Amino acid sequence: MPNPTAAMLVIGDEILSGRTRDANMYHLAGQLTRQGIDLKEVRVVSDDPEAIVSATRALSTAYTHVFTSGGIGPTHDDITADCIAAAFGVSIGVRADARAILQAHYDANGQELNDARLRMARIPDGACLIDNPVSKAPGFTLQNVHVMAGVPSIFQAMLASILPSLTGGKPLLSVTYRVDRGEGDIAAPLGALAAAFPQLSIGCYPFQKDGLFGANIVMRGTDDSQLQKAMTALKGEFPQ
Amino acid sequence: MPNPTAAMLVIGDEILSGRTRDANMYHLAGQLTRQGIDLKEVRVVSDDPEAIVSATRALSTAYTHVFTSGGIGPTHDDITADCIAAAFGVSIGVRADARAILQAHYDANGQELNDARLRMARIPDGACLIDNPVSKAPGFTLQNVHVMAGVPSIFQAMLASILPSLTGGKPLLSVTYRVDRGEGDIAAPLGALAAAFPQLSIGCYPFQKDGLFGANIVMRGTDDSQLQKAMTALKGEFPQ
Repeated sequence: MPNPTAAMLVIGDEILSGRTRDANMYHLAGQLTRQGIDLKEVRVVSDDPEAIVSATRALSTAYTHVFTSGGIGPTHDDITADCIAAAFGVSIGVRADARAILQAHYDANGQELNDARLRMARIPDGACLIDNPVSKAPGFTLQNVHVMAGVPSIFQAMLASILPSLTGGKPLLSVTYRVDRGEGDIAAPLGALAAAFPQLSIGCYPFQKDGLFGANIVMRGTDDSQLQKAMTALKGEFPQ
Repeated sequence: MPNPTAAMLVIGDEILSGRTRDANMYHLAGQLTRQGIDLKEVRVVSDDPEAIVSATRALSTAYTHVFTSGGIGPTHDDITADCIAAAFGVSIGVRADARAILQAHYDANGQELNDARLRMARIPDGACLIDNPVSKAPGFTLQNVHVMAGVPSIFQAMLASILPSLTGGKPLLSVTYRVDRGEGDIAAPLGALAAAFPQLSIGCYPFQKDGLFGANIVMRGTDDSQLQKAMTALKGEFPQ
């Protein structure tokens, strides 16, 4: 059975303007690979309702899971929850369970649960809350879309709390072999190897260091014995 | 007149598997912002012809410019040029000008221009070459799509060689102000400020440091006098 598939939707003007370098994509990609869920596509869109709604619809239709990052705080530019509700045509409002989490948190800190903070208890109808051990304001899962914060520490904590509940496939294994020759010398034998092992994904990632050309050959697959056979063939082709 | 718009298409299994952390998106975003071209969307897709072709068509229709990264080397998994040709329905083959660049380069280095390396001279009909000062194999521009290498040093060099030829709009200016209070305290005044300055994009980026909550308020726009007025209002609201 093929692995479940996934897409990521990053929401945020700060990424597109070059102010912030996204960190969540790299983290999510590594976690999903370990779990046996194939990340197939990432989209980054701006804080624009139309863009968020249409990307949510396209990705949730095409893939098993969608993970979103960003736009669920208390400020005017935090519009993700409303857009996800709109994408699925469900209503949204302050929900008692989410409100109770926030009330307890702010009471304990002697802060007021004001209107802005209460925005973070707005949850689309039918969604399940995602625990936020860092700053309490929850994320949520609506159908196959998991809505999480953009702050990396919170994104990572939320992801850790939902990943165990998702059914993965066989974890993707990978082996890497460095060849100190130009890609152009590697290409023909590597193409033959890829043809001989169609179950594996074989990539060639060139580098230049101190004026020398080389490449890391990365072979990925779920069958360890195939990977070992391919590695033996590769080493035979390019002995060190 | 509104600024020209842009999208980026990152091609590469190595990003989606979590092996490599993309660096080109952050670089492109900063460069386009300085040039007054609004980056509106980024997509990352795998080394899959259907995914590359359909993303190319969608993005090139929706935005003024599309910048691609990755998949133009000599190996079997380098399929970007063929996919871009397919997306526009033009033919592709080894082109004399691209071949001459490679021939001169490999002759000078005493290397053979073998079949694999010659793949890098395959250029879609009607495309203009993009200079590659690092490793010579050119990128190309076909209609509004600029096809560049994934290796960051080469991507940056290729981008530098085409950016001066693109018409930009007014550069996006930004000012940042740090407020050492929780986002929930900032949200209401900030929402009022955003309503008072509809020409500006105002974002609130929370952080936690040493157990304290704070946020950087970032205001972006092309009109410096508006930015200064908004900054004065913001400082009045949250004196330091």
